[in-house]
Amino acid sequence: PGSHAGTSSLAVIPGDGIGPEVTAEALKVLEVASPVKLEPTRYDLGAERYLATGEVLPDSVLAEVRGHDAILLGAVGGKPNDPNLPPGILERGLLLRLRFELDHYVNLRPSRLLPGTASPLADDVLAKGEVDFVVVREGTEGPYTGNGGALRVGTPAEVATEVSVNTAYGVERVVRDAFARAEKRPRKKLTLIHKTNVLVNAGSLWWRTFEAVAAEHPDVSTDYMHVDAAMIFLATDPARFDVVVTDNLFGDIVTDLAAAITGGIGLAASGNVNPDRTAPSMFEPVHGSAPDIAGQQKADPTAAILSGALLLDHLGHADAAAAIEAAVLADLRDRTPGTSRRTSEVGDAIAARL
Amino acid sequence: PGSHAGTSSLAVIPGDGIGPEVTAEALKVLEVASPVKLEPTRYDLGAERYLATGEVLPDSVLAEVRGHDAILLGAVGGKPNDPNLPPGILERGLLLRLRFELDHYVNLRPSRLLPGTASPLADDVLAKGEVDFVVVREGTEGPYTGNGGALRVGTPAEVATEVSVNTAYGVERVVRDAFARAEKRPRKKLTLIHKTNVLVNAGSLWWRTFEAVAAEHPDVSTDYMHVDAAMIFLATDPARFDVVVTDNLFGDIVTDLAAAITGGIGLAASGNVNPDRTAPSMFEPVHGSAPDIAGQQKADPTAAILSGALLLDHLGHADAAAAIEAAVLADLRDRTPGTSRRTSEVGDAIAARL
Ligand SMILES: CC(C)[C@H](C(=O)O)[C@@H](O)C(=O)O
Ligand SMILES: CC(C)[C@H](C(=O)O)[C@@H](O)C(=O)O
Repeated sequence: PGSHAGTSSLAVIPGDGIGPEVTAEALKVLEVASPVKLEPTRYDLGAERYLATGEVLPDSVLAEVRGHDAILLGAVGGKPNDPNLPPGILERGLLLRLRFELDHYVNLRPSRLLPGTASPLADDVLAKGEVDFVVVREGTEGPYTGNGGALRVGTPAEVATEVSVNTAYGVERVVRDAFARAEKRPRKKLTLIHKTNVLVNAGSLWWRTFEAVAAEHPDVSTDYMHVDAAMIFLATDPARFDVVVTDNLFGDIVTDLAAAITGGIGLAASGNVNPDRTAPSMFEPVHGSAPDIAGQQKADPTAAILSGALLLDHLGHADAAAAIEAAVLADLRDRTPGTSRRTSEVGDAIAARL
Repeated sequence: PGSHAGTSSLAVIPGDGIGPEVTAEALKVLEVASPVKLEPTRYDLGAERYLATGEVLPDSVLAEVRGHDAILLGAVGGKPNDPNLPPGILERGLLLRLRFELDHYVNLRPSRLLPGTASPLADDVLAKGEVDFVVVREGTEGPYTGNGGALRVGTPAEVATEVSVNTAYGVERVVRDAFARAEKRPRKKLTLIHKTNVLVNAGSLWWRTFEAVAAEHPDVSTDYMHVDAAMIFLATDPARFDVVVTDNLFGDIVTDLAAAITGGIGLAASGNVNPDRTAPSMFEPVHGSAPDIAGQQKADPTAAILSGALLLDHLGHADAAAAIEAAVLADLRDRTPGTSRRTSEVGDAIAARL
């Protein structure tokens, strides 16, 4: 793989559950919107392949994926507590391995309450202002490194540990990225979320780094929130957020709540971005594989389609990305409450607007 | 200290910020409600003492506190980022030290949307059912143990770690407690919240323990949720929860969101319970010290008062605890929206109803 002039090569990983269905719609829309020819190569990875072959992500496949311009991913994860799927084997072996190996240190999650979408929040909360923020979640460190272990497993003396690893190298680069993003937005506001009062080692590193980089960006206003307090503000005053920077696990938690309050996980897009472009970035909906509704054309592909817009933007096609967003906005506006469309119908409708 | 027949001795730690104000009201109500004489002993611990003397929790004070029947705590924590207060020194040195030394392994946080209280959730979400659940948060392990450290601090090569420590001993006892609580409730439902797909060592221990204890409780229906998915359910369908059991850090996060959706942190009570009664249990509002409004009689003491009810219940006075709850319910029902009362007025009003 690789790109020629006027073409971009995509590694497409549909994955598990509803992943293949929503990915098909994202590709459908991308092919209409992209100003350059897209050359998708499909990689069958996920629960099915693992259950059939024991393979999660062979090194040779990883090497091929690395050769593309960008990656489009559906969703990864088998049936919860399937006895044949050791917990985390797909998540850690496939999804997280891609994020780590391809150095996706900026896990970018925009949270915007789009007009016409229902929020579980009350009107008086929403009346406080427009909900439009973006979470910059660290993607290569924290409690996601796979450090830790277990001793005397299965005995009453078992001890299991998980180690959150945080480095100045890793924290500084993501904090810098977040400041740069905040600087480009009208409000220029950046909130650090952590738990510095308990996780004092990691918290101190995050806090000092945040303060040091803030000093170089006097135009960005900053604040800090403990992760527990952030829950309260997200539920009662989400309009106060502009850009948020946080660690890998807090980011996982915060962005699912953010997705819930901005119309649900069916709309939340994300990018696993390698800002240095030393490897392809990967774009995926925030939602999981939802095995309970897989293959039934019930899933909303909007999150996957919006992830496709982030992909085009990353490849330098800002106008095409904006066109997809506009098509999605129009589709959301015209949705008839109480009706539901098949996954492919939503994709068709959005593609038709381009 | 110690208790005589017909009296109970209380260690009272008002703490920082709004802590002293809300504690005064809790004591006021407790003294009216309690069927036995309460003998409070006040311990001045917190930011002021630390800043004046460098002392956080002297061993001799801890030994005294240990001699009481129960502990009533207001709130702990100085001004955020006060340069004279190393981050976490009060939280880890005082609050968490008490929880750990006194083996408060059940951090109990009831979440009920009381009639007459405003929720930030929309009416259609609240229409799904009554929100009335209790979180059993593990209180002595997980990422709160203070394990971890830092290397090359302040250099570009800094590495900071936080270690979540989980033991079969610690997980089993809190899971058993949660099953016992679920068994006593009408719905008999218990949800485990964790992140087994990423934190595989700790997750496996929690999951296996949960399954093993579930087998002994066939009358309790169980389910499992990743912590990120739990955010979505809390925001969109909180009525589905009955009893939740989770680790120390996830519990911290989940309970602040739970407090937000059930009328806010001004109402959320908690107990740090040692079910084996080898040391006194400690009762405190979930909210923090809110230094910005301290000393202004603006804080709502209801959470502290409800924590007092949990304290009486723990000491065996279920009727008195129920009477406080009823008085609080009546007070909430009769609040005039848009008006605000002084902290002491709320305490007076609730005490007057007893
Ligand atoms: C599937 C899981 C490993 C993943 C994560 O925890 O990062 C997901 O929840 C996400 O947010 O992308
Ligand atoms: C103050 C802080 C250490 C504490 C915690 O994290 O447990 C608080 O947030 C709580 O929930 O009681």
